[in-house]
This record gives sequence, structure tokens and C-alpha cells, in this order.
Amino acid sequence: MLASIISAGMSKIGKREGLGSRELFVEAFLECMEKVPNLNRREIGSIYVGSQSETYEHQIMYGNLIAEAAGLLPKPAIRVEGCAAAGAIALRSAVIDVMSGLHDIVLAAGVEKMTAQSVENVTDALMAASEPTLEQASGLTFPSIYAMMAVDHMNRYGSTIEDLAKVAVKNHYNGSLNPKAHLQKQITIEDVLNSKVVAWPLKLYDCSPISDGAAVAIVVRPEIARKYTDCPVQILGMGCATDTLGLYCRKDISWPNAAAIACMDSYKMAGIEASRINLAEVHDAFTINEILLYEAAGFSERGRGHLLIRDDETSLNGKISINPSGGLKARGHPTGATGLAQVYEVFLQMRGEAGGRRQVNKLDYALTLNEGGSDAVVVSHVFGRS
Amino acid sequence: MLASIISAGMSKIGKREGLGSRELFVEAFLECMEKVPNLNRREIGSIYVGSQSETYEHQIMYGNLIAEAAGLLPKPAIRVEGCAAAGAIALRSAVIDVMSGLHDIVLAAGVEKMTAQSVENVTDALMAASEPTLEQASGLTFPSIYAMMAVDHMNRYGSTIEDLAKVAVKNHYNGSLNPKAHLQKQITIEDVLNSKVVAWPLKLYDCSPISDGAAVAIVVRPEIARKYTDCPVQILGMGCATDTLGLYCRKDISWPNAAAIACMDSYKMAGIEASRINLAEVHDAFTINEILLYEAAGFSERGRGHLLIRDDETSLNGKISINPSGGLKARGHPTGATGLAQVYEVFLQMRGEAGGRRQVNKLDYALTLNEGGSDAVVVSHVFGRS
Repeated sequence: MLASIISAGMSKIGKREGLGSRELFVEAFLECMEKVPNLNRREIGSIYVGSQSETYEHQIMYGNLIAEAAGLLPKPAIRVEGCAAAGAIALRSAVIDVMSGLHDIVLAAGVEKMTAQSVENVTDALMAASEPTLEQASGLTFPSIYAMMAVDHMNRYGSTIEDLAKVAVKNHYNGSLNPKAHLQKQITIEDVLNSKVVAWPLKLYDCSPISDGAAVAIVVRPEIARKYTDCPVQILGMGCATDTLGLYCRKDISWPNAAAIACMDSYKMAGIEASRINLAEVHDAFTINEILLYEAAGFSERGRGHLLIRDDETSLNGKISINPSGGLKARGHPTGATGLAQVYEVFLQMRGEAGGRRQVNKLDYALTLNEGGSDAVVVSHVFGRS
Repeated sequence: MLASIISAGMSKIGKREGLGSRELFVEAFLECMEKVPNLNRREIGSIYVGSQSETYEHQIMYGNLIAEAAGLLPKPAIRVEGCAAAGAIALRSAVIDVMSGLHDIVLAAGVEKMTAQSVENVTDALMAASEPTLEQASGLTFPSIYAMMAVDHMNRYGSTIEDLAKVAVKNHYNGSLNPKAHLQKQITIEDVLNSKVVAWPLKLYDCSPISDGAAVAIVVRPEIARKYTDCPVQILGMGCATDTLGLYCRKDISWPNAAAIACMDSYKMAGIEASRINLAEVHDAFTINEILLYEAAGFSERGRGHLLIRDDETSLNGKISINPSGGLKARGHPTGATGLAQVYEVFLQMRGEAGGRRQVNKLDYALTLNEGGSDAVVVSHVFGRS
């Protein structure tokens, strides 16, 4: 056991008009603090925050803004960045800080305010996470990068546009059960197939939305966790790995190598096999993304990820419940917050607090898998109860 | 002892035309690796890099670019950001990683490519580190923020424009002895006083230049340091503290409270008093900055920092040698790299490798003090030999 999560909070995700990421952070932080009445916030020893705020809000030094908003000045507060993986990087940094013995109680936060920008500005900002000399310069966008991965997978392994669509349908269904999700409406395979083509084979409903949101978690030394809660969620393993930013440098564009390494490392640290995972929140920025991560996480063999969704194995209370929150696809994708939004869902599910039909029945181990760039930096965490 | 530095490297600092920050990183990394022939680079377990690259190079995910450039994929590689403190944050993150037991050998890097942008763009990019609702919006710039601090200090404590000028003269002299410094020419008090007013009382020569550069250090568990070098430099203490981004929120604008806390914490961790420090590299983005940090670091009483420079106590081999590298003022100020450029100078000086007249004679303990924003986040490290 590396560290314990004693509380977590998340803002409503969506188009949060009139609210900046500081206000969204406060919304998440207050929920988080309410769950641990025994915790005096001055006990929090340091803060890590993930965001890409410079490009959306002309603001860097987000550590300071968060520390100030939380009433935690002059505590150490550091911003970490790995584009859409920044939230999980904040959690990882908090865990490492606790493991170092420097602080007993550390706050991990992720924030993003994206919807005040035009779609063109967001697309441009996101492309700063891609390879500069050829791919940014040639006008590639993330939908077109993932479209190439999808075409490769379809050609080599026989996945279909219907398989992709089914990922969206599943995650929209889950999102319809999540009161904090950005998109809470159910959709059909036909809705996906008939939606506007963004970059073939990806259509509008194959892509996650542009969202505002914030999520936080409080990480502590395992020895002190029960001072604050009867139900800590334990972090048993973690992994982080990198790949080339440029897709053109990779041997196999539809094999997310960094994700595979990160998962392997986190299972090893946790002392479990992939088959023990009952629930996973994985990075479905695009529908193909989720299918590729089934394979990288070892939930299916290589080249057979699409069969899991085709056979309904990853639905709520299927063989393995994947993205019960609705995933990036329906819960929403405020980049810097996403990694911690995944952790928030695991925290609720592990404590039996997800509510109603969204609550997964059998849950021993959970995985979060958060990516930055096109599988360029991947951070994974394995959670359990003890 | 928290961790050991076994090697360090730094690019030439300056206007490095035709070179991006990746190339500058490689220049620093190759120097660093040459000093530890027993180290196989594959032994490096993880990487932290400080930069503000999104605003200067339309590039985020700098962890990946550095890992790729160093041949270290798929190792974990994370970007940290705290504007001009990002370099020291990278070092701090590396030390915490080593302390956690996760990795034995960690690379800390800082990079910045600023001179490809116009002065207006750089000014705008830097202001992203300031308070958004009032100070960014009202058109304040960092020179005008530090000018207000200077006026307050002059009014209350009697410091003069000649005292400020003397900081520039000292640091330019030191820079003239440093073959890697951006500005290697000596200047006079008159040169400073006659230079163009930027924001009174700060004139052009009171301000650090806009620079390109990179610096790196390799941090290891103390137990294994001597496998790689006979002269490791030991990290004995560290501190990090935050203050409001907005100057308007502070009780005393010429008291750098975060710096004072960070120093106090790092001295306490190292088990020494301020009086034991023989050499310090402190954040002289503006001349007044250095004087305020004399006070925060405990080298003078509060309100008396200007007397140290007036009495030549901080010159090379004075009572305490401050900014022997030339400081931000003359060595240069590539924002994300500056914190590690300070560490590079300490590494050379501690090992007796600074060369010629720049080498400080008596050196038991050294301090680095790196700021982001206007003293909004401050990171300090105390170094010794054992």
C-alpha cells in the first residue's frame, strides 16, 4: 500500500458559464472537505495541481491560485502538466510526496476551464501537446491522429465503426446515470453513425466534449487514514510511462505502448493480475482510445479489444465495468481535471456511494488510466480497500 | 542529508539563435553525462523538467520531449511549472522522488527558449504568472511590480538607486568571469544610472535579460553517490512556500514572506543557521529583488539589506559571496532553467571547478533561492559536502 485517499470531490462537469477554474476548484474542494470533518485544512502539508491553464486562461502559477483559494498559503503548491494526464500526475506527485515522508497529508487537484474559448482555440491549444516539427506543422489534430489509429486497427484486426459506436452508446448510458456528467442523455448506435464526420472513421459522437470542471483528492500516509474516515480507498500500485510525441516515430500506431508499460508496472506494484480488476476508468477521449486501452490494460488480447465491447463485457456490472462514470465521452473531459475525475468515480464506487443503478456490485480492485497527448504520457493507479 | 547531486550541466546562456530548448537541453545533458562516465543513462529512473514552453514555443508535454531527446523513453517524465521557479521545482521534485524510494537516480532539467519572441510577447507571457483579475487586467508588468517594492523599501528603509545599481555592477563583474554567462561585460554605477528607465526606480541595467538556456542535475540516493563521483554535492535541506499572486493582497509589499519561510525551513532541515552560508545564488530578476532576498535569507536584518551591498559584503569572497555566477542579471534568465542554473553554479563552486577568479575560497554551505511570480512561489535548497 503506497498511500490512502481519505476524501475526494468533483465539481459538476460541463459548460459552466461565468465560472473560472478557481471557482470550480472551490466547488470540488468544499465537497471534499465536507466528507472529512475531522480534518483541519491547515493539516494539509502541500498541494499539487494539474492544468493546462496557460492556454485557456492566460494563467500559469496555478499552484498559488489553488493554495490561495483553499486558504492554504504559504504551503508548497506546485503545478504539474502532461496535457490531459495532468490530473493523474497531480495524484502521482501527491503519493510520492507522502511516500517521501515529507508530508503526511497532501492535496491533489485538477482544474480546467475550456468552454470560454472557441473550438478553434481549444484545438490549437491541445495541439501544443503533439510533436512540433512535423505533426503540429502539418496541421494534424487529435481527432485525425486517433482516426489514423482507428483505421490501422480496423484494417489489421477487423474492428468496425459499429464497435466504436458501441463504446459511445455504453458511456452515454453510464453518463445518463451520473448527475455530475457533462452529457446525461442516452444515444443509439444510429445516432453515432449518423453524426457528423470529424475525421473518418471518427464522428462527432466518437469524440469527447470540451468541458469545464475540477476534481480533487486528499492523499495521506496509510497509518493515519482511519483518523479521518472509516472507508479510505487505498492506492496499491502506480505506473507512469512515456512514448514519442510523434505518431510517425512509432513502430505500431495502434499499440499504446506507454499505457501497457504503466499498467504492467502498477499491477506489479499492487501484486495483482489484470484479471483481478473489476472496474476501470480509462481515457476514452475518442471511442477507439477506449478499445486500445482494453488491450494495453490486459483486459483483452492484443488486437481483440473490440470484441469486449461487441460482447457487452464492459458494461455496468459486465465482466469488467469500464467507465461507469460515463468516461471522458459523457462525464466530460476538462483536460487537467480528467485524471482526478476518474479517481473521484473510483472513490465513490469503492465506498458504495455512486448511487442507484450506477453503483457497481462486486468491486475489489479498480484501475484508472489517464493519458496525455496521443498515449504519449500515461499514468495508471490501482486501488483497493486494504 | 536528503539526496546527492552527482553531476550537473548547463548550456551557454544567451541569445542562442537557431536552437530550440530541446537542443539547449541536449547541450546541458551531454556535459552532465560526461562527468559521470560510470553512469549508464538507462539507470536514470525518472525525469522532471521545468519550463514555461507553452507560451514561448507552443509546446506542452515537455517531459516527453526531454525524455526522447535524452534517449530515456519510456521512463516517467513530468513537466513542473512555477514560472521562473520551475527549475528549482524540478530539482525539488527529483529529491522527493529519490526520498520516496521510488527511484534511485533522477534527472532534473530546466529549459527555456525566450529570444525567438518579441519583448512584448515575452512580457505578456510572463504576466500569466501574476494575479489575473486586477493586476494582469490593469496592465501591470513585472518591472512595475518590482518598482513598487523598490519605492516602498527606499521610502521606509533608506535604500537608494545607487544601492540598486551596485547590485548590477557586482553581478556584471561576476558574469564577466563566467564563460557561460549571457552578459560578460563589466559595467559602472554610472552605466546603470544613465540607462533607460523601465519603471522608476528600475532602469534597464536593473533588469535581468531575456535569455535562452538549459540546465540539468542528476540527483541520487546518498548511499550510491560515490559509485559515480568522488565529489558529490549534498542536498541538506529544502523549503518551498507560497504567497498571494496579487501584490495588492499583501500586508508588506517589500517583505518577501514566502522566501523567508522557504529559507527558514531549509536551514532547519539542514540543521544550520543563516550565518553558516558562504555562498548563495539568489533570484535577482531585478536588483531590488536581490536586496530583499538578503533580508529574507537572514543575511541581514529586515530593512537593512541594502547596507550589505553598500558595504561590499556580498562580492566574490566577501562576507558571503552572492551570485558568483553573475546571477539572473548577468548569467541570464531563461525562466524555466534559472533554478537549475543556480544549482549548476553551486555544483561547480562546491567542487572547486568554477575556475580562475570566480572560484570562491572558503565554502562549507551554499544556498539557492529561486522565485516564481513576484515572490509568489519560492524554492530554496541548502547544499554541503557531507
